[in-house]
Order: sequence, then C-alpha cells, then structure tokens
Amino acid sequence: MKIITLGREFGSGGRELGKRLADQLGIAYYDREIVTELARRTSYDEDYISNALLRNTVSNIPIHFGHTISYAPQSINATGSIYIEQHKLIRELAQKGNCVIVGRAASVILEDFKPFRLFVHADMESRVRRCQERAEAGENLSDKEMERHIRRIDAERKRYFDFFSDIPWGDRRCYELCVNTTGREIKELVPSVAEYIKAWYND
Amino acid sequence: MKIITLGREFGSGGRELGKRLADQLGIAYYDREIVTELARRTSYDEDYISNALLRNTVSNIPIHFGHTISYAPQSINATGSIYIEQHKLIRELAQKGNCVIVGRAASVILEDFKPFRLFVHADMESRVRRCQERAEAGENLSDKEMERHIRRIDAERKRYFDFFSDIPWGDRRCYELCVNTTGREIKELVPSVAEYIKAWYND
Repeated sequence: MKIITLGREFGSGGRELGKRLADQLGIAYYDREIVTELARRTSYDEDYISNALLRNTVSNIPIHFGHTISYAPQSINATGSIYIEQHKLIRELAQKGNCVIVGRAASVILEDFKPFRLFVHADMESRVRRCQERAEAGENLSDKEMERHIRRIDAERKRYFDFFSDIPWGDRRCYELCVNTTGREIKELVPSVAEYIKAWYND
Repeated sequence: MKIITLGREFGSGGRELGKRLADQLGIAYYDREIVTELARRTSYDEDYISNALLRNTVSNIPIHFGHTISYAPQSINATGSIYIEQHKLIRELAQKGNCVIVGRAASVILEDFKPFRLFVHADMESRVRRCQERAEAGENLSDKEMERHIRRIDAERKRYFDFFSDIPWGDRRCYELCVNTTGREIKELVPSVAEYIKAWYND
C-alpha cells in the first residue's frame, strides 16, 4: 500500500506536485477535501475549522494525542474536538488505500503505516514569484508583503507540526525525500518523483 | 553541463549512490581520486592530506577563502596549501565537464556552476548496519563503538562544510534533493534519482 504524506513550504508548489503525483500514480489525493469532510462531520464550517487547526495555540489539546487518545470528553473544546476528528479521518483515509495526503502532520499521525514522507521546498524568491503569479486579481500584495505572508503561514505550519514531532518541521530526517523546486517547473519533476516512490516501494 | 555535488552522512550509502549515479548518467566520478591527485600535486601523502582536510581546525585557513583567494603566500601552512590546492582542483574538475563530486563542500565551492546538490542520509540504525556489513575482517567494532565512529566522522564533515557555508551541513535548503536511504537498497533508488536529475536539467 502506498501512503504518501506531503509536507510543503508555502509557495513551493507542493500542492501542485502532490496533485500531479496522485494523478501520475493513479491514487487518491486529500488536501482541502479533509476540511470539507470535517465540516460535514462536525457542526463547524470550513473556515472555522481551518482557523482552529492552524491559528489556535495547541496548549488546549488533550495530552497523549498520539496513536492512543486519552482525554476526558466533558472537558474538550472546539479546537480539541476538531483535532481529534481530523486525526480519526486521516487514519480512515489511509486505511482506505493508496493516497497522497497533504500537510496536517499526516507523516506523524500515520507513522505506523510507514508512509513515504515527501517534503517540498524552495527559496524565498522563487516562492514569492510563484505566489504572485497565482495571486487572484485584486490581491495586490507587494513582494515584501507576500514574503511576510509566506513566513507567517510557514510559521503556523511549523508550530502545528512541531506539536506532533520531536524532529522539527522540514528537517530532512523526517522525510524520505526532500525536493527543492527553486526555479523549476513542477510538472517536469513529477514523473521521476513518482518513479522514485515506486522504487522505494519496490514496485 | 551536469555538475552533481553529493554530500552524505557516513554509512548512508552515499558513496555507492554517487558511483552508481555517475555510471548511470555516463559521467565522471570524483571522490578519493581527488586526494590521489592532491598527493601528486603536493609534497604530502594521501593519509596526511585526508587528515589535514578533515581533522585540522580551520582557523589557520586564509580569510576570504571563497571564489577569490586572498592570502599572503609566505604565511601559508600545510593545511592551508592543501585546502587551496583542493579548491583549485575541484574547480578544474568541474570545468572539464559533467561529473559527480563527492563531499569536500563542492556544492559551495562550485556555487557559480549552479550544480545539482544532492544529499544522502539515513537513520543511525541503518547506518550502523551498513557499516558493520562492510567492515573489513578484524575491525570488530561493537554497534555502540560503530555509532560513536559514525558520529565522529559526521562531526568532522559538518565542521568542514560549515566553514564554507552559512546554512549548516545537511540542511535541506542547501540541496536540490535529499534522499533518505534508511532500509533501502541503493541500487534500486539510483535510476529514478538519475531521471530526476535529467528532468531538473531539462534534459
């Protein structure tokens, strides 16, 4: 079974790489889909869920939030219940079969599945350019503002991941492969990344 | 032109990966060959050179040891002259054409060649096992002793690299690709790494 978890710096093209990789391998792809399903399962809307997961401090999460979850249900708050639902959902998705799961510390949550852990990064100049190219009409951030935005999102991702992991977010030791997309077209890199993953799985 | 620099943790199989990669791509491979050539060009033997490059403190190297070398020739010591010869040699080799160059902070020394920077690593258990399998008869280190040996060599590599680079040795940001060989056969991974490099070069 191929479970591919994908961590990525904001603006590195990780999302595109993950989507194309799933297409290339003919397997499922889960990213925003996870938030949509969480909204269906809980009483919260998608924006609230995204905010709770990324922006909230993690201090109010039950202790032992790992493979075994131990908490007093009566004391759980909204963020805690969203985390726990997401944890359950990610494991359900992995159990369903081959897939690419983007972000959400899935590499740690699914550690016992022995996933292929992929990390996608790029230098800041390249990420600012990629974000500017994809900015919607009317966004109009200066490059400096875009850089600040990128750093803020990455800091949130790091804080989220580091809550789950002893080795920090983006440290090569947490991943089977770290891909630097600086100055490169994502679609050119995907076929050989797919080949690498197949070789890694002895497939 | 394909200039591939390869950094590696001791025992990760980086040397084997580099050699196989050079064969697969049909290009030159430089590792121990560099020391042999340095011995030919200087009055020092290979062991002395290896020791000087890895074990010596770097405090006695001329300042501005970068792309331009500025030093007072009359004050240079053995280690300094070996460093400078190696620097010249690495750049000569890169100028000759497509190659894989292992270690020696070549990724930094050849920065202006825009090399493909590869880093190979593995977890400690996997590296101890690999080293034990390759140990020569009579070496007989315990696993604990082997781990200490591995950590010592890596500390030397790190000290050497960090003298040249602001970003520390093994940090993904210094590399185009970081490959984790834990529990994997090197020869299975090489073809797709070669494909990735070709795609990166748009070849």
